[in-house]
Amino acid sequence: VENVKNIKLIVEYDGTNYSGWQKQKNAITIQQVLEEALFKFAHEKIDIFGASRTDSGVHARGYACNFLINTKIPVERFRYILNNLLPDDIVILKSEEMPLEFHARYSCKGKRYIYTIINAKQRISIGRQYSYLFNRKLNVDLMRKAATYFIGTHDFEAFRSIGGNVKTSVRAVSELKIEQEGNFIRIIISADGFLYNMVRIITGTLIDVGVGRIKPDEIKNIIESKNRKRAGKCVPGKGLCLDEVFY
Amino acid sequence: VENVKNIKLIVEYDGTNYSGWQKQKNAITIQQVLEEALFKFAHEKIDIFGASRTDSGVHARGYACNFLINTKIPVERFRYILNNLLPDDIVILKSEEMPLEFHARYSCKGKRYIYTIINAKQRISIGRQYSYLFNRKLNVDLMRKAATYFIGTHDFEAFRSIGGNVKTSVRAVSELKIEQEGNFIRIIISADGFLYNMVRIITGTLIDVGVGRIKPDEIKNIIESKNRKRAGKCVPGKGLCLDEVFY
Repeated sequence: VENVKNIKLIVEYDGTNYSGWQKQKNAITIQQVLEEALFKFAHEKIDIFGASRTDSGVHARGYACNFLINTKIPVERFRYILNNLLPDDIVILKSEEMPLEFHARYSCKGKRYIYTIINAKQRISIGRQYSYLFNRKLNVDLMRKAATYFIGTHDFEAFRSIGGNVKTSVRAVSELKIEQEGNFIRIIISADGFLYNMVRIITGTLIDVGVGRIKPDEIKNIIESKNRKRAGKCVPGKGLCLDEVFY
Repeated sequence: VENVKNIKLIVEYDGTNYSGWQKQKNAITIQQVLEEALFKFAHEKIDIFGASRTDSGVHARGYACNFLINTKIPVERFRYILNNLLPDDIVILKSEEMPLEFHARYSCKGKRYIYTIINAKQRISIGRQYSYLFNRKLNVDLMRKAATYFIGTHDFEAFRSIGGNVKTSVRAVSELKIEQEGNFIRIIISADGFLYNMVRIITGTLIDVGVGRIKPDEIKNIIESKNRKRAGKCVPGKGLCLDEVFY
């Protein structure tokens, strides 16, 4: 067909009221709401392919997805068209045309996530949806030392939850930075790919380091053990934000 | 009665899901939820006196209120007791004992409010509850010039909505600063008191200055005119936050 275009969307969303990205029965998801908005415009059912399944309550500042559509409308206009049809917790930041072979998931070269911890005695109300409260004092210097052991290509078997469907648990972490600003601690992590719950388990492990439960140089052994029980717990989804998808 | 204590609370709240501070029929308010939490603990109906009526959707980082209670429990513990009984969008930051004559409203010497504008073409999803989107480019230098005319003691009749019940419309504005950080513009205003919707109408007027509809030095005339129609519009409540109450 002559006018088939492959459109990539960059999406910001507040995941508070959604059961993650992926369509499912009896739960509202980002993918479903986006496909419904597209249906209102196109009057046909169009599949939208997402770069990753994000979990319930997880947010995104730069989610990427794509779809094929037969249209003469300039691609950059899709951003405005869809924003008018979407609820206020989902915003399209960009719509751009890609080669027909582009696929948000299969073409993906990597992603950056940011996990936000509030390290305070007391919960907050304003912005509580976007961070995880941890009330024991964290030693950020120790966490930064531990962070260096994650960087590089490793088998992250110890840092995944059961349920992902992948061929290998080897991933290349290219960046793991920890920023502190007042009570807020932000863990910024980039990799060529992430296993199921990997960012949240790495964060839970860094928290164990921050309270002195794990020594920074033990991280090496924990990675090598490939033993999930030796890593920290999986922290809540609401502190997690998919910051950018790389192509 | 021997153990009557006057307890002042400092409260942070996300006003998104509330019809402001003041109790009313057929709507949920902060005062009502706080009094219900106190009732669960004290098993008696206790009135809580607030420093101000905030409107629907308005937030607070440092709201102040007080109540009288016959108790032997250390006053600083009320913070923890109430936080355990409150929903996650209301947090007590501090509970402290005050002299019996203290009253959150009548003892108040002034307040500081912060109004947050996002000056961008596009709406945001994450944090949308705490700011007002204005999509025409604002000239912050002009707004800062205009801001200087508000400082001092003036009759702010032109900057109030109908409905407040006050003896005089003269107020002393001690601070009016405008901060810019990326797309965010924050208007920080302190005064000995505020008329109904005064911060929101001053903000609307500063926006008119920022787009060139009003010249900075016209502010003087608008104040002197005491004519509501010459000031700007009342911007939405969700961008407003009561930052601190002074005693």
